[in-house]
Amino acid sequence: MEHVTVPPLSRLAICGGTHGNEMSGVYMVREMQKHKDARAGSVAITTVMSNPRAVDACRRYIDKDLNRCFTDALLSSPITDSTPYELLRAKELNDQLGPKGGAGAVDLLCDIHNTTANMGLCLIFYSLDWVTLHIYKYIQSKMTTPVRAIQLDIPLSEAYSLESVGKYGFAIEVGPQPGGVVRADIFNMVKEAVDLTIEWLQRFNSGETFDGGEVEAFSPVQTVDYPRDPTTNEITAAVHPQLQDNDFKLLQPGDPTFLSFSGETMRHEGAALYPFFVNECAYYEKKIAYQLAKKITLTFPSISVKKD
Amino acid sequence: MEHVTVPPLSRLAICGGTHGNEMSGVYMVREMQKHKDARAGSVAITTVMSNPRAVDACRRYIDKDLNRCFTDALLSSPITDSTPYELLRAKELNDQLGPKGGAGAVDLLCDIHNTTANMGLCLIFYSLDWVTLHIYKYIQSKMTTPVRAIQLDIPLSEAYSLESVGKYGFAIEVGPQPGGVVRADIFNMVKEAVDLTIEWLQRFNSGETFDGGEVEAFSPVQTVDYPRDPTTNEITAAVHPQLQDNDFKLLQPGDPTFLSFSGETMRHEGAALYPFFVNECAYYEKKIAYQLAKKITLTFPSISVKKD
Repeated sequence: MEHVTVPPLSRLAICGGTHGNEMSGVYMVREMQKHKDARAGSVAITTVMSNPRAVDACRRYIDKDLNRCFTDALLSSPITDSTPYELLRAKELNDQLGPKGGAGAVDLLCDIHNTTANMGLCLIFYSLDWVTLHIYKYIQSKMTTPVRAIQLDIPLSEAYSLESVGKYGFAIEVGPQPGGVVRADIFNMVKEAVDLTIEWLQRFNSGETFDGGEVEAFSPVQTVDYPRDPTTNEITAAVHPQLQDNDFKLLQPGDPTFLSFSGETMRHEGAALYPFFVNECAYYEKKIAYQLAKKITLTFPSISVKKD
Repeated sequence: MEHVTVPPLSRLAICGGTHGNEMSGVYMVREMQKHKDARAGSVAITTVMSNPRAVDACRRYIDKDLNRCFTDALLSSPITDSTPYELLRAKELNDQLGPKGGAGAVDLLCDIHNTTANMGLCLIFYSLDWVTLHIYKYIQSKMTTPVRAIQLDIPLSEAYSLESVGKYGFAIEVGPQPGGVVRADIFNMVKEAVDLTIEWLQRFNSGETFDGGEVEAFSPVQTVDYPRDPTTNEITAAVHPQLQDNDFKLLQPGDPTFLSFSGETMRHEGAALYPFFVNECAYYEKKIAYQLAKKITLTFPSISVKKD
């Protein structure tokens, strides 16, 4: 693949509290805001508490999931008296850190999330993006715990997450951590990933060339809901103990998936795929017990900064 | 110790959803309510969803922690327009299952709770109570996972939890499980404890004598708050990785307790004690990072049913 050059990446936004009960980002942002110097060498860092009202309430959101509000359609929708708080906040964040798709947007936007699923540290990004893939490979090569990537395949206009507001962006998703709880081990993983991102940006801006290569990523294929009572819609089974906590371990046809509250086991049908977001708290309401992905290989070119 | 006889224990209440985001009890009660026959031999079973509004909202409580509302003072307080929902509900539950301290109360009240702490299955009870200790020993002898007891030392009039409404009562506290999540392994532990409780009651009512003996229990000594910023009151440190998930493992002087977000380790001072409720989600607002207990040995007499 041909070598790629990209203009300097000098404006970084670190966001937390986009979901108000995901505490790694809340405490990461608070900690970074204590230190007045918001510049690390060639990188100017903006730290943002994305959803302060939800953080105060220690809830995922107040009116509406903020991290589903950043589509072009929602960002350009008119404001009325009944506009949900999170949509107003999305427009504010788009003004501060974007505009999405515009020349004034921050160069890189990292949004910190937690999951109750045993996913370790994952980067989630929307499309093939050489900068993000290089940062992913850099973080992966430096951390001792597994680091995985999930690549969504959504056009930018329909991308609904905060990180889509930056010129480049990814979510840092780390678990398992219960809502409302901060775990030191998870916090330290997030801190390491943020520090490595800043380090990569500084080395990139200073003119270093990063070799091309390839990485594995997970590409979502389908979602699976909990078994539910057709009348009440209440769930009738929990994720099976053999699937629980086994995110990213290949789920084969016939493997147990659910254990009903009366004791029956349900099993996986169809192709062998990789489960993730297994038993994530916030996805009960979205009717997702787990997602399934195929593993893909992404090849990317060498990269360096574009000189003026 | 002298043999003890107790009148038949024929009325059992199983309560769940006292905290609306602790899902084992919510699903246990829903599952039991599907089966019309609410009698198991000599035992009539009442199942109660304690805080249905909080369950619907998937929150611990709406206005006030329901499981702090069952003191004599609160139960007898006058109702006004500003009475919190949970206090109204506490009075309803006291009417249905009590009255607390009265002859009409259910014989045994089991209230099901979850914690984000790695506490396994615990029974929590207020005072020396032969019935509860026998049931505890019975459950412990039958389950393959550790079962522990926590004995609070609070007079009945000041006892604030739902289980204090029954003639006998205990909370079943199981973790780790995030709020809003149901785990099959945790659900199955709760189900086994409930089934064994019913089994013991049937055997007791049928005239079986249960031998006396002794059991270990944990007696709370103090609570420890998170380190906090004196100005903002925000926490400045997480539970240390060496303490996290190590509930009931003896904490020695000098052992790490907290790791600040800037990287400093804090250590335990004072006597060696047993930590529990380590990093429980709901206790951040109660200013409790963990509790400390001493281990005690409780001796109890043999018991059988009092014949008319």
